[in-house]
Amino acid sequence: MSTPTEQAQALTPAAVQAAYELIKPYIHLTPLLTCKTLDKIASTPQTAKALIGTPFEGQTPATPKFRFHFKCENLQRIGAFKARGAHHALLRVIEAQGEEELKKRGVITHSSGNHAQALALAASTLNIPAYIVMPEISTPSKIAGTRSHGAEVVFSGSTSVEREAVVAEIQAKTNAILIPPYDDFNIICGQGTTALEMEGQFAEKSSKSLDAVITPVGGGGLNAGVATYFSDKSTRVFGAEPSFQGADDCRRGLLAQDRVEKVSTLTVADGLRTPVGVLNWEVISDKKKVEGVFAVTEEQIKAAMRLVLERMKVVVEPSAVVGLAVCMFDEEFRKRVEEEGGEDGWDVGIVFSGGNTTVEAISKLYS
Amino acid sequence: MSTPTEQAQALTPAAVQAAYELIKPYIHLTPLLTCKTLDKIASTPQTAKALIGTPFEGQTPATPKFRFHFKCENLQRIGAFKARGAHHALLRVIEAQGEEELKKRGVITHSSGNHAQALALAASTLNIPAYIVMPEISTPSKIAGTRSHGAEVVFSGSTSVEREAVVAEIQAKTNAILIPPYDDFNIICGQGTTALEMEGQFAEKSSKSLDAVITPVGGGGLNAGVATYFSDKSTRVFGAEPSFQGADDCRRGLLAQDRVEKVSTLTVADGLRTPVGVLNWEVISDKKKVEGVFAVTEEQIKAAMRLVLERMKVVVEPSAVVGLAVCMFDEEFRKRVEEEGGEDGWDVGIVFSGGNTTVEAISKLYS
Repeated sequence: MSTPTEQAQALTPAAVQAAYELIKPYIHLTPLLTCKTLDKIASTPQTAKALIGTPFEGQTPATPKFRFHFKCENLQRIGAFKARGAHHALLRVIEAQGEEELKKRGVITHSSGNHAQALALAASTLNIPAYIVMPEISTPSKIAGTRSHGAEVVFSGSTSVEREAVVAEIQAKTNAILIPPYDDFNIICGQGTTALEMEGQFAEKSSKSLDAVITPVGGGGLNAGVATYFSDKSTRVFGAEPSFQGADDCRRGLLAQDRVEKVSTLTVADGLRTPVGVLNWEVISDKKKVEGVFAVTEEQIKAAMRLVLERMKVVVEPSAVVGLAVCMFDEEFRKRVEEEGGEDGWDVGIVFSGGNTTVEAISKLYS
Repeated sequence: MSTPTEQAQALTPAAVQAAYELIKPYIHLTPLLTCKTLDKIASTPQTAKALIGTPFEGQTPATPKFRFHFKCENLQRIGAFKARGAHHALLRVIEAQGEEELKKRGVITHSSGNHAQALALAASTLNIPAYIVMPEISTPSKIAGTRSHGAEVVFSGSTSVEREAVVAEIQAKTNAILIPPYDDFNIICGQGTTALEMEGQFAEKSSKSLDAVITPVGGGGLNAGVATYFSDKSTRVFGAEPSFQGADDCRRGLLAQDRVEKVSTLTVADGLRTPVGVLNWEVISDKKKVEGVFAVTEEQIKAAMRLVLERMKVVVEPSAVVGLAVCMFDEEFRKRVEEEGGEDGWDVGIVFSGGNTTVEAISKLYS
């Protein structure tokens, strides 16, 4: 097996393009939406009061000009971009192992989130058995959702040691192949197809390129994939994380020039609680690929999510709006858009990574 | 002035077409969306248990087949179809009175809901002064929303007598012209443009016509307009109302063959608390135009709204989903789709009338 550094070198726009050809029949071409109300709100300077307690206190608030282009992966199959990577990884494993072989062995993953549903869907579509290890404490709706795609749900304790023990146990019996959620070459290429679609959809309405794209960073599959695709193009790529209880492991790692390996956070952006993966880090820590990662507070995430629900009328999960929250509230980022974008401003692509929430979860957030 | 019956005769598809030519530059062509998950759920027979206590108790549940086409007026300007009627009515008044005259006099309405915002927007776009009489107890966000379009908000008590007194007072001073929310020829034609767009958008993907369209019925502007447009076509038109505290005034009026003039209800579908208007009734009570009006419970409205938010990822207000709730829960309607649609099923257009809700309102509904 090649080292992460060697693998990162093989992560090229062409690899993302190849992934796209493969997964295209299985995924939705999700819309790239605009919303003038959100452009207007984000293009209004913050109040002096909002900058109190930040390094920008007392300075004149930035006057960036944003035109947003929202890539609605909340409307993707299973409600999240994860459908891209899961289909790609599975198709590559079938390619490598042969369909008959894989039908015997099956695939396995441990996840309680969107990756579990995505792999279950991909496996059911491609007629491969899937074992999904989920903590016993997972919500019934998530268990039912995973089962509804025909996957076999196997319960475990909730620590990663307990989960991995159950995975090992099933693998010993079935020889099932592990499809990891983010720290994987094929997963990253699959998620990168989001960028390829955004570029094409933006080109339909503009003769210039997107000035920037910003995505959430959890394990880093989406961000690394998007950065890979844009690595030979003029579009800048940024990442966004929650700051709560150290969930901004990637941002902190970049400052320290060393990947943070462990995170324990209960941020409302529950898709972003994991530390960034090894291969993902190789890409994201490359300044030529990702120009910066910014962090936002829980209140900023909730404010951004409120705007998307109430003004744009689109349902997103908290993890999906961290990029928008950076554009609205991170004064360092806003200054940069003001300086580099000038009078014209920036066309910013924002990836709404998912929309898997419930009315109860929304109630809990805002009551 | 012509009588309601004479006016109703002049309500023709051509009148709706003419309205469309006039308002087209001012409104959004909202998308007509599909959702396979909702098709599947609504095409699953209800449980025997769900029919207990209904006239269908003990019968085999209907097996209708639905393909939904959701007209997303929640994505219309000001977040509701009301933008159509308000622009049309105002453009017609300008046509009749002359722009200079109307700039002196202005327009006026009393409303605390979507019509207020719609008229405020239309007036600000067309540079006409607007006076909006709102009850003092209106929520601050609605007052701010109306003011943000440049309208002058004037407060009144909350009964209709108190509101009308304030309107009369302002009219005495300004000679402002009243633009009513629904009981008006031009408003009905404007709302009817929703149907015209649906027909065109459906034709882009199918060689047949929509089998049916179902819309909410409050004052009846939308339903009467849609029925007017389809009156010379094969598409059947239905209406949907909440049943809570007698909010199904139109359905009850049809049964009694007499319009119900007063309603006092606090249904969660707050856009549908008003009784159907006189001219609207002329259209809706014409069996050749509207084939039936059905009513749904508060729980059914909430269940339908939950599905739209969680599965379709689109934000709608409770009033918007009464049509979907009829398709999902009204066994009489479902039997009809089974019988008339047969194996093929029906392509049903559902108008999502608006999306003006807040995260707090969603929290209140589901906590």
